Amino acid sequence: MDALAPRIQARLDALAAISADEGAITRLYLTPEQARASALVVGWMREAGLTPRVDAAGNVIGRIEAVEPGAPALVIGSHLDTVRDAGQYDGPLGVVTGIACVEALVREGVRLPFAVEVVGFADEEGTRFNATLIGSRAFAGTFDPDKLDCPDGQGVTIAGALRAAGLDPDRFHEAARRAGEILAYLELHIEQGPGLERAGLPVGLVTAISGATRLAVTLEGEAGHAGTVAMDGRRDALAGAAACILAVEARCRTDAGLVGTVGSLTATPGAVNVIPGRVGFSLDLRAPDDGLRRAALADIGSAWEAIAAERNLSLTKRITHDAPCVPCDPAWMERIATAIAEEGYPVHPLPSGAGHDGMAVVALAPVAMLFVRCRGGISHNPAEFASLEDIEAGARVLLRVLRGLAAEHDASGPLVLDP
Amino acid sequence: MDALAPRIQARLDALAAISADEGAITRLYLTPEQARASALVVGWMREAGLTPRVDAAGNVIGRIEAVEPGAPALVIGSHLDTVRDAGQYDGPLGVVTGIACVEALVREGVRLPFAVEVVGFADEEGTRFNATLIGSRAFAGTFDPDKLDCPDGQGVTIAGALRAAGLDPDRFHEAARRAGEILAYLELHIEQGPGLERAGLPVGLVTAISGATRLAVTLEGEAGHAGTVAMDGRRDALAGAAACILAVEARCRTDAGLVGTVGSLTATPGAVNVIPGRVGFSLDLRAPDDGLRRAALADIGSAWEAIAAERNLSLTKRITHDAPCVPCDPAWMERIATAIAEEGYPVHPLPSGAGHDGMAVVALAPVAMLFVRCRGGISHNPAEFASLEDIEAGARVLLRVLRGLAAEHDASGPLVLDP
Repeated sequence: MDALAPRIQARLDALAAISADEGAITRLYLTPEQARASALVVGWMREAGLTPRVDAAGNVIGRIEAVEPGAPALVIGSHLDTVRDAGQYDGPLGVVTGIACVEALVREGVRLPFAVEVVGFADEEGTRFNATLIGSRAFAGTFDPDKLDCPDGQGVTIAGALRAAGLDPDRFHEAARRAGEILAYLELHIEQGPGLERAGLPVGLVTAISGATRLAVTLEGEAGHAGTVAMDGRRDALAGAAACILAVEARCRTDAGLVGTVGSLTATPGAVNVIPGRVGFSLDLRAPDDGLRRAALADIGSAWEAIAAERNLSLTKRITHDAPCVPCDPAWMERIATAIAEEGYPVHPLPSGAGHDGMAVVALAPVAMLFVRCRGGISHNPAEFASLEDIEAGARVLLRVLRGLAAEHDASGPLVLDP
Repeated sequence: MDALAPRIQARLDALAAISADEGAITRLYLTPEQARASALVVGWMREAGLTPRVDAAGNVIGRIEAVEPGAPALVIGSHLDTVRDAGQYDGPLGVVTGIACVEALVREGVRLPFAVEVVGFADEEGTRFNATLIGSRAFAGTFDPDKLDCPDGQGVTIAGALRAAGLDPDRFHEAARRAGEILAYLELHIEQGPGLERAGLPVGLVTAISGATRLAVTLEGEAGHAGTVAMDGRRDALAGAAACILAVEARCRTDAGLVGTVGSLTATPGAVNVIPGRVGFSLDLRAPDDGLRRAALADIGSAWEAIAAERNLSLTKRITHDAPCVPCDPAWMERIATAIAEEGYPVHPLPSGAGHDGMAVVALAPVAMLFVRCRGGISHNPAEFASLEDIEAGARVLLRVLRGLAAEHDASGPLVLDP
């Protein structure tokens, strides 16, 4: 068999050339850039033997029927939108690899016992509107239609942007699929972390998409003159926040898979010679197990309360985001693990700390994921990179999963996939 | 004797009404507001029996001669400029109290053995230009003339602003006084801290103006995805900065009079879901003793180096400001202490953590200061407040110092003041 990676990389390069910002990669939901990217993908799908369409939410879907038309489909996909100044792998790699695998199967004449759909979701990152996973939630039928009024930074609503893109917001709900139509959702994605690089492996088996809680936290103390208020008379909100940050770090170090980040912090008034009277900061807490995350959140909350009490600061916190963990489906994990082993690699299970479209699609069908190593764990960045060798390894594992399904079918009569 | 405070307060109110910002107090160096304030003060000086003039730097100086004209002068003063959205006491209180005291002496017919000058310095705060103590440095002859090219936020240089105010930048140096002309510099000022309020006293004896070092510090780690980089693989610049902030606090708590403040902090990129790769923060470190300040600075530097090494962060620091401690003159402190005791108050010595014009004038003459209690220690704020009772107490102590000097003279022949 010819190598798959060069063709995949060429298509990633073609997509990377479509951007709102010159010299960078920025493709946001329902923009002209996205329409151009979708048109390219539609053409590649057709070449591969898939029948393409763009759904009511802007997702690009290519389908190849089983022997019996209208049979349930295995969905392989990822997303086509990007963050601003993005890399070229996060999202598109899973879409073009899916297309390449179907193309290879069609060339080989392998008949699958079920339909296959390759999907390029139109919004996963949530860069344009204050909502994430819009494309995959629409597909799963879980997108709240009230959010169609949600504006972007220029005041254009999702509904308005749909119209501008030639789509009808009143038909947005038609993007939703019925549970019985979808057998499972498989996604290949770059890891976006350093786990595989450290393990020295090109691919990894995802165990779960971590749940996440985000908080907006405020500490109020008292501003004062940096020269005249003695240390023991201070209510320094920034010193309090410093203690809170270290408490997050200390708690998260106690459990593997648990990660806590204070990414944003604002000290007010923020002058060199004034004791900060007020600090706002964020917490992003993730774990591949909801119980672990909840326990850590409670412990961090207690530690913060103690810090605030000791320092005579007032503490307020507000949950800004809360998403449960999505465990990957054991039967599909087993199929991926077998394919990884058959390709000659150790099976390396790891959680996904990043969010993915599977978080939405799980409402509809079992979900499983395969990670490809990315250099330095760097993502959401022009320096994002996956090697041709690693892309080849990922594509071959995915292809082997598909061939294995055909073999399961041949060996046992009609394949029964039990979601 | 009539109370002095009501007249002092009325004059503070009149000055507070002169502002660049409606509903606030903002009087910056070489602005029309400052010219109006200076004109008021000139009028009050004349009423008090002082001969007023505005010097080449914009300082307002009122002089009353001794029996022998041209004798050295005791200078009493403070500043007339303000921060933005200031209170009404910081600066003007010392100027109008000085005028009130001279006025009282003149009414009483007390003859002093030396000239007295009351000075309203034109710039202490440094709000407009990137330089502080411009007025008092000009007076002391220590202002670097190259800094006349220093621009304000609108690009107007000090030289240009002098011209706009009707002053000649080429004659700026003429504001400088010769050392033999000045016997000593006495300043009455609100404390700008909570020390006197805690001690339950209206006035306090300043021991020294604390020296200060300011640093701009940068910690560089590595930005990363908040969900995908395990805790033990992070180089989180904000967690490192948190440890640095707590190290400052811990070190400064070990010595009374030592204060350290991280007032400004910027985490980059500053997104909720990204590990901060870079943090910039400030340190403001002050102590009434230079050895203590230097030792603390070295200890803090060592602690930061250890934190950076342990966390694999790179640390850079740059000194942005460094001013030595200015001890008050023991003989003049003794005179003020005697006057405080004779007014019936315990003598409460305390350092000034805030900077004052004496830091410049000390180049010319011995310096001493008297603090007046300010409510809550609040300053640089519209809520800044000193009570009429406390203003009265401060004015009476200052007046008693002057009367005491006359008595020293009467008792011992010509008063010999040994700087």
